[in-house]
Order: sequence, then structure tokens, then C-alpha cells
Amino acid sequence: MAGAESGSDLVLLDVFASPYAQRVRIALAEKGLAYESTEEDLAAKSDLLRRSNPAHGGKVPVLLHAGRPVCESLVILEYLDDAFPATPPLLPTDPYARAQARFWAEYAGRAHLCGKRLWLRRDGEEAEPEPEARAEMLAVLRTLDAELGGREFFGGEAFGFVDVAAVPFASWFLTYERHGRFAMAEECPGLAAWAARCARRDSVAANVYPPEKVYQRVLEYRQWVLGPK
Amino acid sequence: MAGAESGSDLVLLDVFASPYAQRVRIALAEKGLAYESTEEDLAAKSDLLRRSNPAHGGKVPVLLHAGRPVCESLVILEYLDDAFPATPPLLPTDPYARAQARFWAEYAGRAHLCGKRLWLRRDGEEAEPEPEARAEMLAVLRTLDAELGGREFFGGEAFGFVDVAAVPFASWFLTYERHGRFAMAEECPGLAAWAARCARRDSVAANVYPPEKVYQRVLEYRQWVLGPK
Repeated sequence: MAGAESGSDLVLLDVFASPYAQRVRIALAEKGLAYESTEEDLAAKSDLLRRSNPAHGGKVPVLLHAGRPVCESLVILEYLDDAFPATPPLLPTDPYARAQARFWAEYAGRAHLCGKRLWLRRDGEEAEPEPEARAEMLAVLRTLDAELGGREFFGGEAFGFVDVAAVPFASWFLTYERHGRFAMAEECPGLAAWAARCARRDSVAANVYPPEKVYQRVLEYRQWVLGPK
Repeated sequence: MAGAESGSDLVLLDVFASPYAQRVRIALAEKGLAYESTEEDLAAKSDLLRRSNPAHGGKVPVLLHAGRPVCESLVILEYLDDAFPATPPLLPTDPYARAQARFWAEYAGRAHLCGKRLWLRRDGEEAEPEPEARAEMLAVLRTLDAELGGREFFGGEAFGFVDVAAVPFASWFLTYERHGRFAMAEECPGLAAWAARCARRDSVAANVYPPEKVYQRVLEYRQWVLGPK
């Protein structure tokens, strides 16, 4: 790869467990761009992080390129396509396909917001899930399943923009299933198969926790937020 | 303009008062693209609207191009740049400037969400604003003011992507001021001047309500949502 494309001037202000930071790491891996990752402690953010994303109070991820910050995961993904045009693109070239990819990448983040309504409750998974939260989560997952259709990836045969945006949440499917009391394989078989397919990919496997670990961390996080029962 | 760029196969599923639909109409006007607008009744959405944006329950705006739907206002703006490359671009060409524009366009939508916390309350503007909602709104407006800096437009000398994304909310500034009990001219003089500058632009004037009308409609809407006091 040419020097200008080496990515050696890329620094990621990172949190390994953040699905949004994972999007960026997976994209960098898919593009073969070298970067330096700096793990941030969200309870004690670095001055650099605060200075780099003041509008959002120092939210991760931030990608510094030659010292200039780019914030928000999907903005960073587009930036990588724009700034490193010699690397494999995430977005397709056709205008309509690009618009569809942007729409579904944004939509994929919804699953995570619905998920919180299932697992961030004091009574935890011993109790029945809140019916409305469960229904909303299933609707979102089924919508993604229908969009995927019979394809290998959201990008078709190639792992692309929507796949990168959605795949960090695939590791959360187990957590959604257990808290929502449903089975992905029954409700969204295509999406479940997609998740398994993506998990075997190097760029994904190296950058996300396995589903069981996400589940355990969510239990710990819930206890930390809500306190002991 | 060439036939392929005439935009005569563009249909906007529209709500005149929607700031998100306004973004699209302003962009179409700036690009000189002809289109047909179909005003939707949100209480009785057309089948076409429901079919065109099922994932979001038939949210407006939807732009149909040769019958194919594009949803979400910022996705539509990018689509117009991609699909009509001979029209004046909204986004800059420099990769870093594009990323910044995407970030701030997304951020501009925050003002509207904060605004709801100020005006969608039963006790209305007779009561003191909720201190946290007021502080959050001022923080967002001051952040936008600082980003604008001394420039004519967010896009610099040209009215661009962030301006189109933010300008529908400029008509709401009066509503924010009255419900939040602050004066834009004092708190954010640059942003207030930008709003006045944009309001004189044909593409804007033709596609948004004047501030006083927004204010009156918000009062009516609040009464409709919350019922009489």
C-alpha cells in the first residue's frame, strides 16, 4: 500500500467494548489501514478525548487523522471511504445503493436502543420482558432480517457499510434473546445466519467480544448502574 | 439544465410544516430541481407513504426518484448530491470538510429535540422553563454559534449542507426564546444573524413558515397533544 494510504497517522480514541468504536476498528481492518488505538476510561476521559469531541462531551469513538478529529462512527466510516480512496470502499458507487446503505446503517443502531429497554431493568431476566419493548425489538430485528433477504451480506456478496454498522450488535443478539425471551433462529433465521457468518470474519472476530461475554458484561453493567437488587 | 437533470421524475411525500421535509425542499430549490410535492396528512397517511417508508412507519419526508423511495432527510440530501452531480453540490469536496459537514448537520437536529422539552409542557410559557431543558438548549445553540464563528454560512461563503440541515430550525428560534426565556441576539448573536441572513434567501423564504407562525402553530399543537389546561 502506498505511503499516503498507510494510515500510520491514524489514532483511534477507543473503548474496546463500545459497538460504535467497534464499527470503526472493523472498518479500519477491512481497509487494511494501520492505526494506533488508545483505550479510554469513560469514567476518567482524557483531555485529548474531551478536546476532540466537545460537542458530544467527549464521546467515543474519535478518529484522529494527522491530528484532526473525526467524530461519530458513521461519519468516520464515510470519512475513511473519502480520505483513503485506494482502500476497499465500504459504500457502493451507485447513488441509490449509497442512499439505501446510509439508511440501513442508521437503522441498525435502533436495535441497540431497543435492547436497553429489555436489559436495563431492575428485575432483570427473571421477570417477563416488558411486552412493548419486546415487540419493538422483534419488529426492528425482523425489519433488518427482511432487508437482508436471502443475501450473504447487507452489501450483497461483499461485506460493506451496513454490515460494518450492524455487526457489533450481532454480538448482542444473545443478550436480546435471553432478556426478550425469543429465539433469533426462529424469529429472524436469515439475520441469525448472517451474524454467525460475520463472526467468522477476521476483522469482526478480532474486534468484538463473543456473545456470551457481552451477556456477562451487560449483567455486570446493569448491576453497576442500578445497584444490587 | 440537461434532461437527465431536470428532476421531473422527483416526487416528494411532504408535510409543509415539517422541518425535515423543509430540508429537502430547500435542497431541491438550491439545486434548481423541479419536483412534485404531495402534502401528506399525518393523521391519515397515504398508502404510498406507508409503503415507501415501512421501517419508520411512514415518516416524512420521502423522495421518490423514478418511483424509488429515498427516506430520511439527511440521506436524501446526500442522494441529491450523488444522483444529480451537475447541480450545485451541498457537501464540500474535501474529505475532512465533508466529515465535518456530516457531523454538524446531524448535530443541528439536536436543537429541535431540546426545544420540545421547553415547549411541550402543560403549564406552557407562563411557567418558568425547566432549568435543565433551558441549559441544554442554550448549550446546543451556543455550540452551533461557536461552530459558525464569524462565517457567513456554516459552509463558509456558500450556503451548504449544514445550512440546509439547520435552517428549518431557525424559524423555531423565536419559539425557543419565548419558552426558554432567553434572547438569541444576546446568547448567540452570530447564529441569530445567520438565521436572519438565511431567511432572506429565496429557497428558505418559500419553504418555511415565518417565526411568528411557527410559534402560533406550536401553541396549537401543544393544545392538541396535551388537551386544554
